[in-house]
Amino acid sequence: MCELLGMSANVPTDICFSFSGLLERGGNTGPHKDGWGITFYEGKGCRTFKDPEPSCQSEIAKLVKVYPIKSVSVISHIRQGNRGRVCLENTHPFTRELWGKEITYAHNGQLSNYNDLKPEFYRPVGNTDSELAFCWLLDKIREKYPKKPSNIAVVFRYAAKLAETLKDKGVFNMLLTDGVYVMAYCTNNLHWLTRRAPFGKATLIDADMVVDFKEETTPNDIVSVIATRPLTNDEQWQKMEPGEFVLFKLGEKI
Amino acid sequence: MCELLGMSANVPTDICFSFSGLLERGGNTGPHKDGWGITFYEGKGCRTFKDPEPSCQSEIAKLVKVYPIKSVSVISHIRQGNRGRVCLENTHPFTRELWGKEITYAHNGQLSNYNDLKPEFYRPVGNTDSELAFCWLLDKIREKYPKKPSNIAVVFRYAAKLAETLKDKGVFNMLLTDGVYVMAYCTNNLHWLTRRAPFGKATLIDADMVVDFKEETTPNDIVSVIATRPLTNDEQWQKMEPGEFVLFKLGEKI
Repeated sequence: MCELLGMSANVPTDICFSFSGLLERGGNTGPHKDGWGITFYEGKGCRTFKDPEPSCQSEIAKLVKVYPIKSVSVISHIRQGNRGRVCLENTHPFTRELWGKEITYAHNGQLSNYNDLKPEFYRPVGNTDSELAFCWLLDKIREKYPKKPSNIAVVFRYAAKLAETLKDKGVFNMLLTDGVYVMAYCTNNLHWLTRRAPFGKATLIDADMVVDFKEETTPNDIVSVIATRPLTNDEQWQKMEPGEFVLFKLGEKI
Repeated sequence: MCELLGMSANVPTDICFSFSGLLERGGNTGPHKDGWGITFYEGKGCRTFKDPEPSCQSEIAKLVKVYPIKSVSVISHIRQGNRGRVCLENTHPFTRELWGKEITYAHNGQLSNYNDLKPEFYRPVGNTDSELAFCWLLDKIREKYPKKPSNIAVVFRYAAKLAETLKDKGVFNMLLTDGVYVMAYCTNNLHWLTRRAPFGKATLIDADMVVDFKEETTPNDIVSVIATRPLTNDEQWQKMEPGEFVLFKLGEKI
Protein backbone atom coordinates (compact mmCIF):
# COMPACT_ATOMS: atom_id res chain seq x y z
CA MET A 1 0.00 0.00 0.00
CA CYS A 2 2.76 2.38 0.98
CA GLU A 3 6.27 2.06 2.31
CA LEU A 4 7.85 3.76 5.28
CA LEU A 5 11.44 4.64 6.04
CA GLY A 6 12.75 6.15 9.24
CA MET A 7 16.17 6.91 10.67
CA SER A 8 17.41 7.77 14.14
CA ALA A 9 21.07 8.59 14.70
CA ASN A 10 23.35 9.91 17.42
CA VAL A 11 25.20 12.20 15.00
CA PRO A 12 23.77 14.02 11.98
CA THR A 13 23.82 11.39 9.25
CA ASP A 14 22.66 11.43 5.67
CA ILE A 15 20.09 8.93 4.49
CA CYS A 16 21.09 8.95 0.80
CA PHE A 17 21.85 5.21 0.69
CA SER A 18 18.59 4.00 2.24
CA PHE A 19 16.55 6.64 0.43
CA SER A 20 18.02 5.48 -2.89
CA GLY A 21 16.65 2.01 -2.24
CA LEU A 22 13.24 3.29 -1.20
CA LEU A 23 12.90 5.55 -4.24
CA GLU A 24 13.20 2.63 -6.62
CA ARG A 25 10.08 1.16 -5.08
CA GLY A 26 8.23 4.33 -6.04
CA GLY A 27 7.21 3.16 -9.51
CA ASN A 28 10.24 1.07 -10.49
CA THR A 29 10.91 -2.04 -8.36
CA GLY A 30 7.71 -1.34 -6.43
CA PRO A 31 4.22 -0.02 -7.26
CA HIS A 32 4.23 3.01 -4.92
CA LYS A 33 3.92 5.68 -7.57
CA ASP A 34 1.42 8.03 -5.93
CA GLY A 35 3.86 10.47 -4.44
CA TRP A 36 6.61 10.51 -1.87
CA GLY A 37 7.95 12.71 0.90
CA ILE A 38 10.81 12.99 3.36
CA THR A 39 11.26 15.10 6.49
CA PHE A 40 14.67 15.93 7.93
CA TYR A 41 15.19 17.40 11.39
CA GLU A 42 18.08 19.78 11.78
CA GLY A 43 18.25 21.29 15.25
CA LYS A 44 14.74 22.19 16.39
CA GLY A 45 13.62 22.79 12.84
CA CYS A 46 12.64 20.39 10.12
CA ARG A 47 12.14 20.54 6.40
CA THR A 48 10.08 18.36 4.16
CA PHE A 49 10.52 17.57 0.50
CA LYS A 50 7.43 16.10 -1.06
CA ASP A 51 6.03 15.48 -4.47
CA PRO A 52 2.84 13.88 -5.78
CA GLU A 53 4.96 12.59 -8.73
CA PRO A 54 6.34 9.01 -8.66
CA SER A 55 9.61 9.07 -6.73
CA CYS A 56 11.51 7.17 -9.40
CA GLN A 57 10.84 10.07 -11.83
CA SER A 58 10.81 13.05 -9.48
CA GLU A 59 13.36 15.83 -10.05
CA ILE A 60 13.12 16.74 -6.40
CA ALA A 61 13.76 13.15 -5.34
CA LYS A 62 16.84 13.12 -7.56
CA LEU A 63 18.20 16.11 -5.66
CA VAL A 64 17.42 14.61 -2.25
CA LYS A 65 19.12 11.36 -3.31
CA VAL A 66 22.44 13.03 -4.11
CA TYR A 67 22.40 16.05 -1.79
CA PRO A 68 23.47 14.75 1.64
CA ILE A 69 21.29 16.50 4.22
CA LYS A 70 22.57 15.43 7.62
CA SER A 71 19.99 14.79 10.28
CA VAL A 72 19.49 12.80 13.47
CA SER A 73 15.83 12.06 12.75
CA VAL A 74 14.27 11.37 9.38
CA ILE A 75 10.89 10.06 8.26
CA SER A 76 10.09 9.17 4.67
CA HIS A 77 7.12 7.68 2.85
CA ILE A 78 6.27 6.52 -0.65
CA ARG A 79 2.61 6.25 -1.41
CA GLN A 80 0.34 3.87 -3.21
CA GLY A 81 -2.91 5.65 -2.59
CA ASN A 82 -6.06 3.99 -1.34
CA ARG A 83 -8.07 6.52 0.68
CA GLY A 84 -7.76 10.02 -0.80
CA ARG A 85 -6.71 10.99 -4.32
CA VAL A 86 -3.14 11.66 -5.46
CA CYS A 87 -2.36 15.28 -4.63
CA LEU A 88 0.04 17.31 -2.55
CA GLU A 89 -2.19 17.65 0.51
CA ASN A 90 -2.53 13.85 0.69
CA THR A 91 1.22 13.26 0.47
CA HIS A 92 3.04 12.12 3.62
CA PRO A 93 4.82 12.89 5.92
CA PHE A 94 2.55 15.27 7.83
CA THR A 95 3.87 17.76 10.37
CA ARG A 96 2.10 19.77 13.07
CA GLU A 97 3.41 21.91 15.90
CA LEU A 98 2.78 20.86 19.51
CA TRP A 99 4.30 22.72 22.52
CA GLY A 100 6.55 24.60 20.09
CA LYS A 101 7.94 21.34 18.70
CA GLU A 102 7.51 20.02 15.18
CA ILE A 103 5.88 16.56 15.26
CA THR A 104 6.09 14.51 12.08
CA TYR A 105 4.19 11.39 11.12
CA ALA A 106 3.76 8.95 8.26
CA HIS A 107 1.39 6.00 7.97
CA ASN A 108 1.27 2.81 6.00
CA GLY A 109 -2.00 0.89 5.88
CA GLN A 110 -5.68 1.54 5.56
CA LEU A 111 -8.37 2.25 8.14
CA SER A 112 -12.11 1.62 8.10
CA ASN A 113 -14.92 2.98 10.28
CA TYR A 114 -12.91 6.01 11.27
CA ASN A 115 -15.82 8.45 11.29
CA ASP A 116 -15.71 8.51 15.07
CA LEU A 117 -12.26 10.14 14.91
CA LYS A 118 -13.25 13.79 15.21
CA PRO A 119 -10.21 15.90 16.03
CA GLU A 120 -11.02 19.46 17.08
CA PHE A 121 -7.67 21.00 17.74
CA TYR A 122 -5.78 19.74 14.73
CA ARG A 123 -7.72 19.38 11.48
CA PRO A 124 -6.75 17.45 8.40
CA VAL A 125 -5.95 19.51 5.30
CA GLY A 126 -6.32 16.62 2.87
CA ASN A 127 -8.79 13.74 2.94
CA THR A 128 -6.71 10.70 3.81
CA ASP A 129 -7.49 8.37 6.69
CA SER A 130 -3.79 8.77 7.56
CA GLU A 131 -3.82 12.52 8.21
CA LEU A 132 -7.12 12.23 10.09
CA ALA A 133 -5.56 9.60 12.36
CA PHE A 134 -2.54 11.87 12.92
CA CYS A 135 -4.75 14.81 13.91
CA TRP A 136 -6.70 12.56 16.25
CA LEU A 137 -3.49 11.27 17.85
CA LEU A 138 -2.21 14.80 18.41
CA ASP A 139 -5.55 15.94 19.79
CA LYS A 140 -5.48 13.11 22.32
CA ILE A 141 -1.86 13.82 23.24
CA ARG A 142 -2.56 17.54 23.66
CA GLU A 143 -5.59 16.76 25.78
CA LYS A 144 -3.57 14.53 28.11
CA TYR A 145 -0.43 16.69 28.06
CA PRO A 146 -1.47 20.34 27.67
CA LYS A 147 2.07 21.20 28.72
CA LYS A 148 5.21 19.52 27.48
CA PRO A 149 6.19 16.80 29.96
CA SER A 150 9.82 16.84 31.03
CA ASN A 151 10.30 13.30 29.74
CA ILE A 152 8.90 13.16 26.21
CA ALA A 153 9.30 9.36 26.09
CA VAL A 154 6.04 9.07 28.05
CA VAL A 155 4.26 10.79 25.20
CA PHE A 156 5.46 8.21 22.70
CA ARG A 157 4.35 5.42 25.02
CA TYR A 158 0.93 7.07 25.18
CA ALA A 159 0.94 7.37 21.37
CA ALA A 160 1.58 3.61 21.16
CA LYS A 161 -1.45 3.02 23.38
CA LEU A 162 -3.57 5.28 21.18
CA ALA A 163 -2.27 3.43 18.13
CA GLU A 164 -3.98 0.28 19.41
CA THR A 165 -7.33 1.98 18.82
CA LEU A 166 -6.26 2.73 15.25
CA LYS A 167 -4.98 -0.80 14.71
CA ASP A 168 -8.48 -2.03 15.58
CA LYS A 169 -9.72 -0.04 12.58
CA GLY A 170 -7.47 -1.74 10.03
CA VAL A 171 -3.79 -1.67 9.18
CA PHE A 172 -1.80 0.93 11.05
CA ASN A 173 1.97 0.94 10.62
CA MET A 174 3.29 4.31 11.74
CA LEU A 175 6.41 6.38 12.19
CA LEU A 176 6.28 9.36 14.56
CA THR A 177 9.03 11.75 15.61
CA ASP A 178 9.65 14.98 17.48
CA GLY A 179 13.18 15.26 16.10
CA VAL A 180 14.83 13.52 19.06
CA TYR A 181 12.76 10.36 19.42
CA VAL A 182 11.67 8.23 16.48
CA MET A 183 8.86 5.79 17.18
CA ALA A 184 7.62 2.91 15.05
CA TYR A 185 4.31 1.17 15.61
CA CYS A 186 3.58 -2.04 13.74
CA THR A 187 0.37 -3.70 12.66
CA ASN A 188 1.75 -6.08 10.10
CA ASN A 189 4.86 -4.89 8.32
CA LEU A 190 7.86 -3.05 9.75
CA HIS A 191 11.52 -3.99 10.11
CA TRP A 192 14.44 -2.27 11.79
CA LEU A 193 18.15 -2.58 12.41
CA THR A 194 20.86 -0.68 14.26
CA ARG A 195 24.23 -0.08 12.66
CA ARG A 196 27.18 0.42 15.00
CA ALA A 197 30.89 -0.42 15.13
CA PRO A 198 32.32 -2.64 13.81
CA PHE A 199 30.71 -1.39 10.62
CA GLY A 200 30.61 -3.47 7.47
CA LYS A 201 29.26 -3.45 3.98
CA ALA A 202 25.63 -3.30 2.95
CA THR A 203 24.04 -4.00 -0.42
CA LEU A 204 20.73 -2.50 -1.50
CA ILE A 205 18.05 -4.89 -2.70
CA ASP A 206 16.39 -2.40 -5.08
CA ALA A 207 19.37 -0.69 -6.68
CA ASP A 208 22.84 -1.68 -7.73
CA MET A 209 24.50 0.02 -4.79
CA VAL A 210 26.89 -1.12 -2.09
CA VAL A 211 28.18 1.00 0.76
CA ASP A 212 31.00 0.29 3.16
CA PHE A 213 29.87 2.02 6.34
CA LYS A 214 33.42 1.69 7.75
CA GLU A 215 34.43 4.41 5.34
CA GLU A 216 31.43 6.62 6.02
CA THR A 217 31.32 6.58 9.81
CA THR A 218 33.31 7.08 12.99
CA PRO A 219 33.49 4.29 15.59
CA ASN A 220 31.00 6.04 17.89
CA ASP A 221 28.22 6.40 15.34
CA ILE A 222 24.96 4.63 16.05
CA VAL A 223 22.31 4.69 13.36
CA SER A 224 18.98 2.86 13.40
CA VAL A 225 16.89 2.43 10.30
CA ILE A 226 13.24 1.39 10.15
CA ALA A 227 11.62 0.25 6.91
CA THR A 228 8.47 -1.51 5.78
CA ARG A 229 10.58 -4.17 4.06
CA PRO A 230 14.33 -4.70 4.50
CA LEU A 231 16.32 -2.41 2.21
CA THR A 232 19.53 -4.46 2.19
CA ASN A 233 20.11 -8.17 1.63
CA ASP A 234 23.24 -8.67 3.74
CA GLU A 235 22.22 -7.21 7.08
CA GLN A 236 20.11 -8.61 9.90
CA TRP A 237 16.73 -6.84 9.97
CA GLN A 238 14.39 -7.34 12.94
CA LYS A 239 10.81 -8.01 11.96
CA MET A 240 8.34 -6.28 14.28
CA GLU A 241 5.35 -8.09 15.78
CA PRO A 242 1.74 -6.98 15.37
CA GLY A 243 0.98 -4.39 18.06
CA GLU A 244 4.66 -3.91 18.87
CA PHE A 245 6.23 -0.52 19.12
CA VAL A 246 9.87 0.47 19.24
CA LEU A 247 11.22 3.80 20.38
CA PHE A 248 14.61 5.13 19.35
CA LYS A 249 16.38 8.08 20.93
CA LEU A 250 19.25 9.45 18.88
CA GLY A 251 20.07 6.08 17.33
CA GLU A 252 19.60 3.79 20.31
CA LYS A 253 16.53 1.67 20.92
CA ILE A 254 15.31 2.51 24.42
CA MET B 1 17.01 43.22 6.89
CA CYS B 2 15.19 40.65 4.78
CA GLU B 3 13.35 40.63 1.51
CA LEU B 4 9.92 39.32 0.72
CA LEU B 5 8.42 38.00 -2.49
CA GLY B 6 4.82 36.98 -3.03
CA MET B 7 2.73 35.93 -6.00
CA SER B 8 -1.00 35.59 -6.56
CA ALA B 9 -2.30 34.26 -9.87
CA ASN B 10 -5.57 33.16 -11.45
CA VAL B 11 -3.95 30.13 -13.11
CA PRO B 12 -1.08 28.02 -11.75
CA THR B 13 2.02 30.00 -12.71
CA ASP B 14 5.68 29.43 -12.05
CA ILE B 15 7.70 32.05 -10.22
CA CYS B 16 11.10 31.10 -11.67
CA PHE B 17 11.71 34.55 -13.19
CA SER B 18 10.99 36.60 -10.07
CA PHE B 19 12.64 34.04 -7.79
CA SER B 20 15.82 34.23 -9.91
CA GLY B 21 15.99 37.96 -9.19
CA LEU B 22 15.36 37.52 -5.48
CA LEU B 23 17.97 34.78 -5.11
CA GLU B 24 20.74 37.07 -6.31
CA ARG B 25 20.02 39.34 -3.37
CA GLY B 26 20.72 36.39 -1.07
CA GLY B 27 24.45 37.00 -0.80
CA ASN B 28 25.25 38.28 -4.28
CA THR B 29 23.62 41.60 -5.28
CA GLY B 30 22.18 41.90 -1.75
CA PRO B 31 23.33 41.02 1.78
CA HIS B 32 20.54 38.59 2.71
CA LYS B 33 22.70 35.54 3.17
CA ASP B 34 21.14 34.04 6.31
CA GLY B 35 18.85 31.57 4.63
CA TRP B 36 15.89 31.56 2.32
CA GLY B 37 12.60 29.78 1.83
CA ILE B 38 9.68 29.52 -0.55
CA THR B 39 6.21 28.04 -0.13
CA PHE B 40 4.08 26.93 -3.08
CA TYR B 41 0.38 26.13 -2.82
CA GLU B 42 -0.90 23.41 -5.10
CA GLY B 43 -4.57 22.64 -4.50
CA LYS B 44 -5.23 22.60 -0.76
CA GLY B 45 -1.69 21.51 -0.02
CA CYS B 46 1.53 23.44 0.09
CA ARG B 47 5.20 22.60 0.10
CA THR B 48 8.10 24.62 1.35
CA PHE B 49 11.71 24.55 0.28
CA LYS B 50 14.01 26.19 2.77
CA ASP B 51 17.66 26.35 3.55
CA PRO B 52 19.76 28.18 6.13
CA GLU B 53 22.46 28.46 3.42
CA PRO B 54 22.77 31.68 1.36
CA SER B 55 20.32 31.45 -1.54
CA CYS B 56 22.92 32.41 -4.14
CA GLN B 57 24.90 29.24 -3.21
CA SER B 58 22.12 26.85 -2.26
CA GLU B 59 21.78 23.61 -4.24
CA ILE B 60 18.10 23.51 -3.34
CA ALA B 61 17.58 27.08 -4.54
CA LYS B 62 19.21 26.12 -7.84
CA LEU B 63 16.63 23.38 -8.29
CA VAL B 64 13.71 25.65 -7.39
CA LYS B 65 15.00 28.28 -9.83
CA VAL B 66 14.92 25.95 -12.83
CA TYR B 67 12.16 23.51 -11.88
CA PRO B 68 8.88 25.26 -12.70
CA ILE B 69 6.45 24.48 -9.90
CA LYS B 70 3.11 25.99 -10.89
CA SER B 71 1.09 27.60 -8.17
CA VAL B 72 -1.59 30.25 -7.66
CA SER B 73 -0.13 31.44 -4.35
CA VAL B 74 3.53 31.69 -3.42
CA ILE B 75 5.42 33.31 -0.56
CA SER B 76 9.19 33.58 -0.44
CA HIS B 77 11.73 35.17 1.88
CA ILE B 78 15.46 35.72 2.01
CA ARG B 79 16.87 36.46 5.40
CA GLN B 80 19.41 38.78 6.89
CA GLY B 81 19.04 37.76 10.49
CA ASN B 82 18.66 40.16 13.38
CA ARG B 83 16.60 38.47 16.12
CA GLY B 84 17.38 34.75 16.30
CA ARG B 85 20.44 32.91 15.00
CA VAL B 86 20.86 31.42 11.53
CA CYS B 87 19.29 27.97 11.61
CA LEU B 88 16.51 26.01 9.97
CA GLU B 89 13.87 26.70 12.63
CA ASN B 90 14.39 30.46 12.21
CA THR B 91 14.08 30.33 8.42
CA HIS B 92 10.89 31.76 6.86
CA PRO B 93 8.22 31.17 5.60
CA PHE B 94 6.35 29.66 8.53
CA THR B 95 3.23 27.54 8.08
CA ARG B 96 0.57 26.47 10.57
CA GLU B 97 -2.77 24.74 10.12
CA LEU B 98 -5.99 26.59 11.01
CA TRP B 99 -9.48 25.15 10.31
CA GLY B 100 -7.83 22.46 8.17
CA LYS B 101 -6.16 25.08 5.99
CA GLU B 102 -2.44 25.71 5.66
CA ILE B 103 -1.64 29.33 6.56
CA THR B 104 1.76 30.64 5.50
CA TYR B 105 3.55 33.79 6.59
CA ALA B 106 6.82 35.63 6.13
CA HIS B 107 8.01 38.83 7.81
CA ASN B 108 10.51 41.52 7.00
CA GLY B 109 11.49 43.91 9.76
CA GLN B 110 12.32 43.87 13.42
CA LEU B 111 10.16 44.16 16.52
CA SER B 112 10.93 45.41 20.03
CA ASN B 113 9.05 45.03 23.31
CA TYR B 114 7.24 41.96 22.10
CA ASN B 115 7.29 40.11 25.42
CA ASP B 116 3.59 40.80 25.83
CA LEU B 117 2.89 38.60 22.81
CA LYS B 118 2.12 35.32 24.55
CA PRO B 119 0.45 32.93 22.15
CA GLU B 120 -1.05 29.84 23.76
CA PHE B 121 -2.52 27.91 20.92
CA TYR B 122 0.31 28.18 18.44
CA ARG B 123 3.84 28.20 19.80
CA PRO B 124 7.01 29.28 18.06
CA VAL B 125 9.52 26.53 17.29
CA GLY B 126 12.45 28.90 16.74
CA ASN B 127 13.30 32.12 18.57
CA THR B 128 12.62 34.87 16.04
CA ASP B 129 10.35 37.83 16.72
CA SER B 130 8.81 36.96 13.34
CA GLU B 131 7.54 33.50 14.20
CA LEU B 132 6.34 34.73 17.60
CA ALA B 133 4.31 37.46 15.87
CA PHE B 134 2.86 34.86 13.47
CA CYS B 135 1.78 32.60 16.33
CA TRP B 136 0.23 35.58 18.09
CA LEU B 137 -1.65 36.60 14.93
CA LEU B 138 -3.02 33.09 14.47
CA ASP B 139 -3.98 32.85 18.14
CA LYS B 140 -5.97 36.07 17.83
CA ILE B 141 -7.60 34.94 14.59
CA ARG B 142 -8.53 31.57 16.06
CA GLU B 143 -9.94 33.26 19.14
CA LYS B 144 -12.16 35.53 17.04
CA TYR B 145 -13.02 32.90 14.43
CA PRO B 146 -13.09 29.49 16.12
CA LYS B 147 -14.86 28.25 12.99
CA LYS B 148 -13.89 29.09 9.45
CA PRO B 149 -16.00 32.03 8.27
CA SER B 150 -17.67 31.59 4.89
CA ASN B 151 -15.88 34.66 3.56
CA ILE B 152 -12.20 34.32 4.40
CA ALA B 153 -11.50 37.88 3.23
CA VAL B 154 -12.79 39.13 6.59
CA VAL B 155 -10.02 37.19 8.29
CA PHE B 156 -7.35 38.97 6.27
CA ARG B 157 -8.94 42.33 7.10
CA TYR B 158 -8.79 41.37 10.76
CA ALA B 159 -5.14 40.30 10.30
CA ALA B 160 -4.40 43.77 8.90
CA LYS B 161 -5.94 45.31 12.02
CA LEU B 162 -3.83 43.06 14.23
CA ALA B 163 -0.78 44.00 12.17
CA GLU B 164 -1.18 47.59 13.38
CA THR B 165 -0.34 46.41 16.89
CA LEU B 166 2.82 44.76 15.53
CA LYS B 167 3.72 47.85 13.49
CA ASP B 168 3.68 49.80 16.75
CA LYS B 169 6.47 47.51 17.95
CA GLY B 170 8.85 48.23 15.09
CA VAL B 171 9.04 47.37 11.42
CA PHE B 172 6.43 44.89 10.27
CA ASN B 173 6.21 44.14 6.57
CA MET B 174 4.33 40.88 6.12
CA LEU B 175 3.00 38.43 3.58
CA LEU B 176 0.21 36.08 4.62
CA THR B 177 -1.68 33.50 2.57
CA ASP B 178 -4.17 30.67 2.86
CA GLY B 179 -3.47 29.50 -0.67
CA VAL B 180 -6.34 31.49 -2.24
CA TYR B 181 -5.78 34.97 -0.82
CA VAL B 182 -2.38 36.61 -0.57
CA MET B 183 -2.15 39.59 1.74
CA ALA B 184 0.62 42.15 2.08
CA TYR B 185 0.94 44.52 5.02
CA CYS B 186 3.43 47.37 4.82
CA THR B 187 5.30 49.31 7.46
CA ASN B 188 7.96 50.84 5.27
CA ASN B 189 8.95 48.79 2.27
CA LEU B 190 6.75 46.78 -0.07
CA HIS B 191 5.93 47.12 -3.76
CA TRP B 192 3.51 45.29 -6.03
CA LEU B 193 2.33 45.09 -9.61
CA THR B 194 -0.25 43.14 -11.59
CA ARG B 195 0.63 41.66 -14.96
CA ARG B 196 -2.23 41.14 -17.41
CA ALA B 197 -2.84 41.32 -21.17
CA PRO B 198 -1.44 42.97 -23.19
CA PHE B 199 1.72 41.37 -21.80
CA GLY B 200 5.15 42.78 -22.54
CA LYS B 201 8.78 42.27 -21.71
CA ALA B 202 10.36 42.56 -18.29
CA THR B 203 14.02 42.81 -17.32
CA LEU B 204 15.38 41.72 -13.96
CA ILE B 205 17.39 44.27 -11.99
CA ASP B 206 19.57 41.67 -10.22
CA ALA B 207 20.32 39.17 -12.96
CA ASP B 208 20.91 39.30 -16.67
CA MET B 209 17.50 37.97 -17.54
CA VAL B 210 14.65 39.21 -19.73
CA VAL B 211 11.31 37.51 -20.17
CA ASP B 212 8.61 38.20 -22.75
CA PHE B 213 5.42 37.38 -20.86
CA LYS B 214 3.50 37.35 -24.18
CA GLU B 215 5.20 34.06 -24.94
CA GLU B 216 4.67 32.61 -21.48
CA THR B 217 1.02 33.45 -20.87
CA THR B 218 -2.49 33.24 -22.27
CA PRO B 219 -4.57 36.44 -22.67
CA ASN B 220 -6.67 35.66 -19.61
CA ASP B 221 -3.78 35.28 -17.17
CA ILE B 222 -3.62 37.69 -14.26
CA VAL B 223 -0.55 37.54 -12.04
CA SER B 224 0.28 39.89 -9.18
CA VAL B 225 3.74 40.05 -7.65
CA ILE B 226 4.67 41.65 -4.34
CA ALA B 227 8.29 42.38 -3.45
CA THR B 228 10.23 44.38 -0.89
CA ARG B 229 12.01 46.24 -3.71
CA PRO B 230 11.02 46.19 -7.39
CA LEU B 231 12.51 43.17 -9.15
CA THR B 232 12.33 44.58 -12.71
CA ASN B 233 13.41 47.93 -14.08
CA ASP B 234 10.92 48.30 -16.95
CA GLU B 235 7.61 47.77 -15.21
CA GLN B 236 5.47 50.05 -13.06
CA TRP B 237 5.68 48.95 -9.42
CA GLN B 238 3.28 50.44 -6.85
CA LYS B 239 4.95 51.49 -3.64
CA MET B 240 2.83 50.74 -0.59
CA GLU B 241 2.21 53.29 2.15
CA PRO B 242 3.01 52.76 5.84
CA GLY B 243 0.06 50.97 7.45
CA GLU B 244 -1.43 50.02 4.07
CA PHE B 245 -2.50 46.52 3.27
CA VAL B 246 -3.42 44.96 -0.04
CA LEU B 247 -5.32 41.76 -0.53
CA PHE B 248 -5.14 39.66 -3.67
CA LYS B 249 -7.46 36.84 -4.59
CA LEU B 250 -6.20 34.62 -7.37
CA GLY B 251 -4.27 37.40 -9.06
CA GLU B 252 -6.69 40.31 -8.66
CA LYS B 253 -6.39 43.01 -6.03
CA ILE B 254 -9.72 43.09 -4.21
